Amino acid sequence: MSAFQLHDQLAKDSFFVSKLGVSQVRLNNDSRFPWLILIPELPNLRELHEIPDDLQPSVYQEIRRCSILLGELTKADKMNIAALGNLVPQLHIHIIARKHHDIAWPQPVWTKGASVPFKKDEQENMVGELLKQFEQ
Amino acid sequence: MSAFQLHDQLAKDSFFVSKLGVSQVRLNNDSRFPWLILIPELPNLRELHEIPDDLQPSVYQEIRRCSILLGELTKADKMNIAALGNLVPQLHIHIIARKHHDIAWPQPVWTKGASVPFKKDEQENMVGELLKQFEQ
Repeated sequence: MSAFQLHDQLAKDSFFVSKLGVSQVRLNNDSRFPWLILIPELPNLRELHEIPDDLQPSVYQEIRRCSILLGELTKADKMNIAALGNLVPQLHIHIIARKHHDIAWPQPVWTKGASVPFKKDEQENMVGELLKQFEQ
Repeated sequence: MSAFQLHDQLAKDSFFVSKLGVSQVRLNNDSRFPWLILIPELPNLRELHEIPDDLQPSVYQEIRRCSILLGELTKADKMNIAALGNLVPQLHIHIIARKHHDIAWPQPVWTKGASVPFKKDEQENMVGELLKQFEQ
């Protein structure tokens, strides 16, 4: 089994925030939605159901933690959680904070076309805010 | 706490397949994609992270079981798993079998507009096939 290596596309489209027990947390580079991406640092995973049995509880707790934390930080109206992976095969879990007034509501975010990248100061602020929460 | 009651919209848009330990499994009435909906039979749940701690492992095992079962039955190229709930607030988890040649690939299914309901015999065949798998 080869070692874990972050997929190039995930590296390009998101910023590192924190490492939890099993997974790396990243901020998706789309300023339209507060959107974390959780990537279990395990090699050769494509499907959610492929996470080894002994690590599943940890990964699910990490999904739960990210969902609660991002929801509270952004005062979200609804959290959207998804493991799709049709374009980037490495298993990654989307954790997206939705608001009733966001640009895609009530549709899923993927119906709304291209991302709008963060400006550098916006990105730094958001990563800083998230880090504070993860370190609490 | 009130008793669990299936949301009217979920009842209308899907067919009952089976009851697992915690969740009800239903077939979404959209013949374009093999698509299960898993609904934990617990009252007042909106978010994935609201599942009580003691039931989380069971619900996650049920998600896993549905994903493996539907993937194998349909020879899926990729499974898509999602808890969105922007339109129907009762917690429900989408488990969708994707193919490289399906109408929405590689986009998420929600980018492709309205459902195409099953014909009666198609629906009965699909529910029958699924039931056989769940009863194994």
